[in-house]
Amino acid sequence: MKSFFITLEGPEGSGKSTQAARLVKRLADASLKAVRTREPGGTPTGEAIREILQRDKAGEPIVPEAEALLFAASRAQLVRRVILPALKRGRIVISDRFADSTTVYQGHARGLGVERMLDLNAFAVDAAAPDLTILIDVDVRLGFQRLARRHRKSGRDRMEREAIEFHENVRQGYLNLARRYPARFRVVDGSRSSDAVEADVWKLVKARLCAAGLLTGCSS
Amino acid sequence: MKSFFITLEGPEGSGKSTQAARLVKRLADASLKAVRTREPGGTPTGEAIREILQRDKAGEPIVPEAEALLFAASRAQLVRRVILPALKRGRIVISDRFADSTTVYQGHARGLGVERMLDLNAFAVDAAAPDLTILIDVDVRLGFQRLARRHRKSGRDRMEREAIEFHENVRQGYLNLARRYPARFRVVDGSRSSDAVEADVWKLVKARLCAAGLLTGCSS
Repeated sequence: MKSFFITLEGPEGSGKSTQAARLVKRLADASLKAVRTREPGGTPTGEAIREILQRDKAGEPIVPEAEALLFAASRAQLVRRVILPALKRGRIVISDRFADSTTVYQGHARGLGVERMLDLNAFAVDAAAPDLTILIDVDVRLGFQRLARRHRKSGRDRMEREAIEFHENVRQGYLNLARRYPARFRVVDGSRSSDAVEADVWKLVKARLCAAGLLTGCSS
Repeated sequence: MKSFFITLEGPEGSGKSTQAARLVKRLADASLKAVRTREPGGTPTGEAIREILQRDKAGEPIVPEAEALLFAASRAQLVRRVILPALKRGRIVISDRFADSTTVYQGHARGLGVERMLDLNAFAVDAAAPDLTILIDVDVRLGFQRLARRHRKSGRDRMEREAIEFHENVRQGYLNLARRYPARFRVVDGSRSSDAVEADVWKLVKARLCAAGLLTGCSS
């Protein structure tokens, strides 16, 4: 059965979650069932891991190696409990972040090494290789302004409190990966309105689903 | 500064925790300060991970790959926050389980592969290599009888509910590792009384601490 696995990647405040939701809606309008998930999380175990990672629940700094391994653990569970079963049922799977996030955040920005994180991801993801990764690229300061609005009351999580320099590294790490895997990555300018980004994302996804024979009436 | 890192390994019900406590007492009697820790756990982050691993808190089965990564995450945090700092202060560190547990439980018994787990451990443990690993070997059925007594009221955790065959594999996996690393491993017969095992463990540790120049009056 035909299936398709799409991941959305990008720095903080790039609008990944909004776009993931809109993409599911677009697919539903085209009569395509999609499973939407997120990282870290997406399973009960993964959400418990997310809790440890995001809120400094334990009251101590998490060392970079433990951080990378926790993300990988959440991913291993998500792949085997949600993503691979959905793909086997012929579904389209959309994940808000996936393995590239670890490669970029822990491998590049935290300095654990891109190649080491690629090895770690290979163990975690098994056969779940994205068919298409959409990188929503956004200027770091613009992303931060958006986050400041979103979290004026709820407070920022641990990752969002990192220095601006760290997030500049994240952006560069993503752009490096997009150059390394040009067949899989598509970069979208996320500095525009949500509607404009949505239109670009849908155009990219539609073209790939048409090519894969998952959408009909593609000539229009 | 001289330091020494001892790990205690063995199947369920082999008496590791009892022996770890007694070893700390013996060392204190010899005026040696020891730091005792355990896996998974030993740090606030590690204890939160332990909670996920042991109680099926999340209400879903944890896949073997996620299990291995969660143990490794707990270990990475423990090494960098507790073990390496203590060794740098010249302390003796005693850990109730360490990297060998992952090699044996996930690598050998769950079939993820011993070499893959050795790679994963190498990433997690950094420079924290045990100077001495004491394997408390015990017949699986005897270990289970002990556990049944201990947990008559509190209930058994997830790992302890595994089939007897799994635990036979664990025992064989440990004995394989002891043969592979003969300089580091010492095997103690754990089927005897706690006092008899304690005497053996102390004899082994004392000899190694004397050789390392950490204990004086060793000729007696």
